[in-house]
Amino acid sequence: MPGALWIVGLGPGGADARTERAAAAVRGAEAVVGYGPYVDQCADLLRDDQLVERGTMGEEEARAQRAVALAVAGRRVALVSSGDAGIFGMAALALRAAAAVPEDARPPVEVVPGVTAGVAAAAALGAPLGDFATVSLSDVLVPWEQVEARISALAATDLALTLYNPRSRTRTWQLDRVRELLLEHRAPRTAVALATDVGRPDQRIEVATLADFDAERVAMRTVVLVAGPTAERVGSWLVTARGRG
Amino acid sequence: MPGALWIVGLGPGGADARTERAAAAVRGAEAVVGYGPYVDQCADLLRDDQLVERGTMGEEEARAQRAVALAVAGRRVALVSSGDAGIFGMAALALRAAAAVPEDARPPVEVVPGVTAGVAAAAALGAPLGDFATVSLSDVLVPWEQVEARISALAATDLALTLYNPRSRTRTWQLDRVRELLLEHRAPRTAVALATDVGRPDQRIEVATLADFDAERVAMRTVVLVAGPTAERVGSWLVTARGRG
Repeated sequence: MPGALWIVGLGPGGADARTERAAAAVRGAEAVVGYGPYVDQCADLLRDDQLVERGTMGEEEARAQRAVALAVAGRRVALVSSGDAGIFGMAALALRAAAAVPEDARPPVEVVPGVTAGVAAAAALGAPLGDFATVSLSDVLVPWEQVEARISALAATDLALTLYNPRSRTRTWQLDRVRELLLEHRAPRTAVALATDVGRPDQRIEVATLADFDAERVAMRTVVLVAGPTAERVGSWLVTARGRG
Repeated sequence: MPGALWIVGLGPGGADARTERAAAAVRGAEAVVGYGPYVDQCADLLRDDQLVERGTMGEEEARAQRAVALAVAGRRVALVSSGDAGIFGMAALALRAAAAVPEDARPPVEVVPGVTAGVAAAAALGAPLGDFATVSLSDVLVPWEQVEARISALAATDLALTLYNPRSRTRTWQLDRVRELLLEHRAPRTAVALATDVGRPDQRIEVATLADFDAERVAMRTVVLVAGPTAERVGSWLVTARGRG
């Protein structure tokens, strides 16, 4: 039987946030490859007869190559990501690795979409989005100036923002700089939510304002959600004016 | 037993694009309310003992009120949307309706996130996103000038775009105007994908360029995906440079 590769978005958290298509791809796989915590996220689907490879941070390129190589060698492979694999996940790397295989040896590849962390964070808060933008604050792969340019341009719009990779052990000042850039155009009382481990047992969601949110409360896996100017507290929820950004 | 309201995103297409949490909410409901085609999207979950109300376009406000009223009256209610209910869906309206109920009579409300049409379209194409923005082109609820301002500001960035509600029977020229605004900053050869009925049996995805895509091929339920400047055709896929917008 020929191999195949599924690039799977597992959704933000527990088993009930996965789609049936994502679960079926993992169940049907002979090999499951992914960053360790993401493999753990689908541990309930794994079987002893599957080859399971837990990778580490920073080895994404090698992991993509490995998943493709296993598929070329005839295995049915699930390469798993949290959230959606196309949103700062493994899909781009894995598709490039697959495209480098000569066409007559290239396995079929399918990208299985997932619920993103940003959309899940929004749902946990109520309905704070509307028109919105999703930006990674990581400068590991792009110059920081490019990230700043995106934030500055977006600050001047009325879009809500979901910010990924806001902080790491070594990137500690960037989020405060983003706050400064946003405050050039957005009101200090703009609602900002810090959503950490959304959909997991230890989910933590804190709502503050652009002026006073505590960047120290933010981890790498936090989504920082900046509401648009029309969002307001309604009951216990944060809700955008429908259609008004 | 007290009533409750689940505001459910069913994902973009078939049963396998739903999360287990979304399916459970519909299965556990005594009443299922939604725009007709969205109720049809979960027909496989419905039972004869459920109250099922199929609504029509333009009656969103009344539908939100009705769903809340049923929950206040003690029913377990699922208000269903395609994609994610917080992205131009029913969540904001329904939460506002729920918040208007006096607190001691207010039923518990939960927003169940779904896979968005934009993310599903991206997965069907490969991995064309990266940093991206999601904008509705409908001017039913906002002045067209506001939509143009968003598009103009985004055109000057390197974000990919997923554009919702690009066209209707009465809104026929707006998408060509958006093309003009984008061409002020983006290259004519920028990849543009028209993704219609993603995840459904009649899914249709066409890839063209910003200069030459055919706005006549676009329906209300098409997502128009404008790739970022680094996206390129790789094998049969459209793939962004990872981390580079």
